[in-house]
Amino acid sequence: MFDIIYLLEMIGVVAFAISGMIVARSKNMDPVGIFAIGFVTALGGGTLRDLMMDNHPLYWIQHEEQPILILAMAVIFSYWHRAERIRESRIVFPDAIGLGVFSILGAQLALDLGHSWFVASLLGVMTGTFGGALRDTLCNEVPFIFRKDQVYASISFAGCWLYFVCQWLLESETLALTIGLLFIAITRLLAVRFDIRLQRDRRYG
Amino acid sequence: MFDIIYLLEMIGVVAFAISGMIVARSKNMDPVGIFAIGFVTALGGGTLRDLMMDNHPLYWIQHEEQPILILAMAVIFSYWHRAERIRESRIVFPDAIGLGVFSILGAQLALDLGHSWFVASLLGVMTGTFGGALRDTLCNEVPFIFRKDQVYASISFAGCWLYFVCQWLLESETLALTIGLLFIAITRLLAVRFDIRLQRDRRYG
Amino acid sequence: MFDIIYLLEMIGVVAFAISGMIVARSKNMDPVGIFAIGFVTALGGGTLRDLMMDNHPLYWIQHEEQPILILAMAVIFSYWHRAERIRESRIVFPDAIGLGVFSILGAQLALDLGHSWFVASLLGVMTGTFGGALRDTLCNEVPFIFRKDQVYASISFAGCWLYFVCQWLLESETLALTIGLLFIAITRLLAVRFDIRLQRDRRYG
Repeated sequence: MFDIIYLLEMIGVVAFAISGMIVARSKNMDPVGIFAIGFVTALGGGTLRDLMMDNHPLYWIQHEEQPILILAMAVIFSYWHRAERIRESRIVFPDAIGLGVFSILGAQLALDLGHSWFVASLLGVMTGTFGGALRDTLCNEVPFIFRKDQVYASISFAGCWLYFVCQWLLESETLALTIGLLFIAITRLLAVRFDIRLQRDRRYG
Repeated sequence: MFDIIYLLEMIGVVAFAISGMIVARSKNMDPVGIFAIGFVTALGGGTLRDLMMDNHPLYWIQHEEQPILILAMAVIFSYWHRAERIRESRIVFPDAIGLGVFSILGAQLALDLGHSWFVASLLGVMTGTFGGALRDTLCNEVPFIFRKDQVYASISFAGCWLYFVCQWLLESETLALTIGLLFIAITRLLAVRFDIRLQRDRRYG
Repeated sequence: MFDIIYLLEMIGVVAFAISGMIVARSKNMDPVGIFAIGFVTALGGGTLRDLMMDNHPLYWIQHEEQPILILAMAVIFSYWHRAERIRESRIVFPDAIGLGVFSILGAQLALDLGHSWFVASLLGVMTGTFGGALRDTLCNEVPFIFRKDQVYASISFAGCWLYFVCQWLLESETLALTIGLLFIAITRLLAVRFDIRLQRDRRYG
């Protein structure tokens, strides 16, 4: 189980890092800015979670292969011309998995430390969404999650509660984690589809 | 004493949450954004204070009725049409009480943990003002407290020192808390009156 | 050795505080805003470092003469008319020393707490650059270090690694600290010279 979770976590880190790097590049940032925004987007949520729960050493300090990976990605992203073809639309799938993994694992850690369901769901949502909010604030925009994508945080919140209920009913941690995670990822993907149609309707309606 | 302080604290949380929700709505945020900005405005100051003083679990994790209250407020604020009538001018009174309570309680906690008067006054000011600064930064404005409302943080600073001196002279914690708190709230209300007149003079002068 | 480091640290704090106050003044902030931005620019990096490494009490709480100094500077900066003549170009030299001192001491603290070279170099860069990034975010600009000054963080990163290698080869902490610090400060000064010429070339080229 651990290996699958870790693999999904890496996919989430990579997806969030790429989303940060795309925004940083659109703001004409240099390689250092691209690394910094990628780092903050991918690891900011987990850092906030660990600071708020006094969980030391921080996640990215324990798993230093993750900042190393982001550094390598920033170098590739800055100097390999074919990376310019990566568009935000391409990362919807891994981004949805990342949102699911980060939300559920953030909530699970809070439960392990003895917090209530409500507090754990807030910490899960923060873990899943804070990186993207920081990215947008540093790039001087009203954070994405507050602006147009209202279902982003709501899906994370609902998925955390689904995970709690499943864990309580099924008494199987693994199964509950999987259900919560898949719920968030799949609902997110459906919401992206739905949102795109919604905006098209408005524009041409 | 505890009950009165807790009651005032709740008034401060509600007032700060409303001020955040009003700004979030003016930026066309959705219900999730309204909850997030309300949460951050009301509980951001206390979270910063607890992180800086290594005081765990965080205030809002210990008092989870407060985020639940803010969630309920965000739902009402988003879907109840009469909430649209709430204007920032209506919350000047509870906001002043909130500034007083958060500043004095932040300073008191720092004293209890053995910090000096100067450090405690800085932590008091941060507790009282950080939530509003975060609100404005997330909504992509130059923070309110830095821009036009110069007396906001200064009043908080002066009130903390008044509390320290009273506590030292009077040897009554309760009385000193009350004096510091009332000084901040009343001076703030007088300053708002004065500022409004000052701006009117400039515009039509 | 300690006294020289502490003296350099004070120079760094003063330089970073001035750079924050200059930006705050250009945004028409009042004395409180000038103090707040000066405080955050000078002490934000060290605060982030201490929070991330769970190193309490925070640096500025242990050394409260530093916020007192910044408060005195903010009063002078706000009310003494000759302070208006201070331009950002004047603080390039102490700012370079500050970057060197903060980066190397941040990295050293991380090593002392048992972290790896890579994690220590990231924490060194954060300590050296986070204050300036916060200053620009609070003043509602895309952070300076991401925008045009790409060598800023890179120099800090390279200097941290030079310090690690020197410390490992020379087995003299003092000498390694000095080499890393001077490398960052001197390279930064050279980079500023080079950048100025680069921009002039572009404008008149």
